[in-house]
Amino acid sequence: MSELRALVFDVFGTVVDWRSGVARAFAAFPPTRHLDAFALADQWRARYQPAMEEVRSGRRPFARLDDLHRENLSLVLRDAGADLAGVSQADLDHLNRAWHRLDPWPDVPLGLHRMRRRFFLAPLSNGNILLLASMAKRAGLPWDAVLGAETARAYKPQPEAYLRTCDILAMRPAEVCLVAAHNGDLAAARACGLKTAFVPRPLEHGPGQLRDLCAEQDWDWIAEDFVALDAALERGKR
Amino acid sequence: MSELRALVFDVFGTVVDWRSGVARAFAAFPPTRHLDAFALADQWRARYQPAMEEVRSGRRPFARLDDLHRENLSLVLRDAGADLAGVSQADLDHLNRAWHRLDPWPDVPLGLHRMRRRFFLAPLSNGNILLLASMAKRAGLPWDAVLGAETARAYKPQPEAYLRTCDILAMRPAEVCLVAAHNGDLAAARACGLKTAFVPRPLEHGPGQLRDLCAEQDWDWIAEDFVALDAALERGKR
Repeated sequence: MSELRALVFDVFGTVVDWRSGVARAFAAFPPTRHLDAFALADQWRARYQPAMEEVRSGRRPFARLDDLHRENLSLVLRDAGADLAGVSQADLDHLNRAWHRLDPWPDVPLGLHRMRRRFFLAPLSNGNILLLASMAKRAGLPWDAVLGAETARAYKPQPEAYLRTCDILAMRPAEVCLVAAHNGDLAAARACGLKTAFVPRPLEHGPGQLRDLCAEQDWDWIAEDFVALDAALERGKR
Repeated sequence: MSELRALVFDVFGTVVDWRSGVARAFAAFPPTRHLDAFALADQWRARYQPAMEEVRSGRRPFARLDDLHRENLSLVLRDAGADLAGVSQADLDHLNRAWHRLDPWPDVPLGLHRMRRRFFLAPLSNGNILLLASMAKRAGLPWDAVLGAETARAYKPQPEAYLRTCDILAMRPAEVCLVAAHNGDLAAARACGLKTAFVPRPLEHGPGQLRDLCAEQDWDWIAEDFVALDAALERGKR
C-alpha cells in the first residue's frame, strides 16, 4: 500500500457552506432583499454544472468559474425579475464574489490545521485560483498550494482534473486522497487511482437534502467531520 | 494612481538564499563531500538560464523547473567527476529537491507576515508549484496562492509570465507589484505595467558579488529588506 502524502479537497459543500454564504449575499443586495435568498442561492448553484459542461464538452474553451458565475448571476437576477436600476457593474461583481466570502463548516479550521502537520493540503476544486485563495485568506484555511480546475485546465469529474493535479504534486494517484462530501466526485477520483475520504455534509442543500447523506461505496475513509477524519488518518484505519 | 492590491515575489535570491542551501546539500551528499560545495552550487545555478531558454525559445515544450534542475544536476555531477557508485535514483532526487529546502533570508518571515495583512501575496517565480509550496511549508512562508511559471506556462522574463499572473489575479498590472533583488526581472515587469520594488541581496552570489548591488532604475519602492519594504509600503512613499 502506498503511503499517503497529500490530501486534496472538494471545496463547495465539503469545506464551505456555500448555500448560507450565497444567501447572505442576496439578502444584503438591495434588488433581491425582498426575495427568498436561499431559493436564489439554489437557482445560482443549479446553473453551475450546465455551465461547466459547456467547457467539459469542448463546446467552449476553458473559462474560470468566476466568469461562469458572473454570467449565471445575470440569468438568475433576470429570472427573478430583480430591478437593477441604479446597480453598478462593481455592485454585481461584488455580489459575484460572494463565492470568495463563504464560511467553512465549524470543524474545518481545526481539522485542516491538524491534518496539515502530516500531509500536503490543497483544494482540488472547480473554483478558480483567485476565488479559492481569497476564500482561504478570509477564512484562514491553511492550504499549502491552491490547486484545482484552473491549474489542471479541466473541470471535475473529468479524469484530467485529478490526474494533472497528481502530476503537479509529482505523486502517484495512490499517494493522494480526495476528501469530498459527494459520492460522484469520489467515484471519479477512485477511477483515477486516488484514495478517497467521505465526509457527509447533510445540510449542504438545506433542510430537505436527499443526496449524499451517506457513503455509497466503501471509501477508504469515512468520517463525520474534518476533526474525526484527522483522527481516522492518524489511526491509519478506515 | 491605481491602488496596490497584490505583491508578487521573485523567490531564488530575493526570498531565499539558494546558494547556501544548495551548498549545504552538496556538502551532505557523500560523492561530493570532498568538493567545493559553493562552486558546485554556482555551477548548478549557471545551467539554470540556458535550460529555461530552451523553453522560452520554443525549442522545447514547457517543462517544470524540478525536471530542468534534475537534468542539470546530472551534468554538474558528471563534470565534477563525482563517483555515483552506490547512489540511487532516490538519492539523486532527494539532492535535486535541495531547492525545496532553501532557507529564507532572516528578514523574510516577519516582513511577509506584516505585508500579508494588507496585500495578497504570491510568489512569481520560475520555480514550479510543488517546489515553491514545499519550500513555503518548510519555511513558513505565508503565501495566499502559489503562482509563477507553472501556472502561467511561461518563464520570466517573458511578458506572459507577468501578464498571465495578473490575469489569474483579475487585477490590472498597475495593481500588482513585483518584489525582486534583480534589476532585469523588475525591468521586464515594469515593461508589462506592474509596479516594482527592489530589495538588494548583496550576498546572493557570495562574497564577490558584482551584479544587482543597487537599483539601476527608479523603481517604485527601494528598501533594504522585507521589513523595511513593509514600512515603506505602509507610508505609501518610495
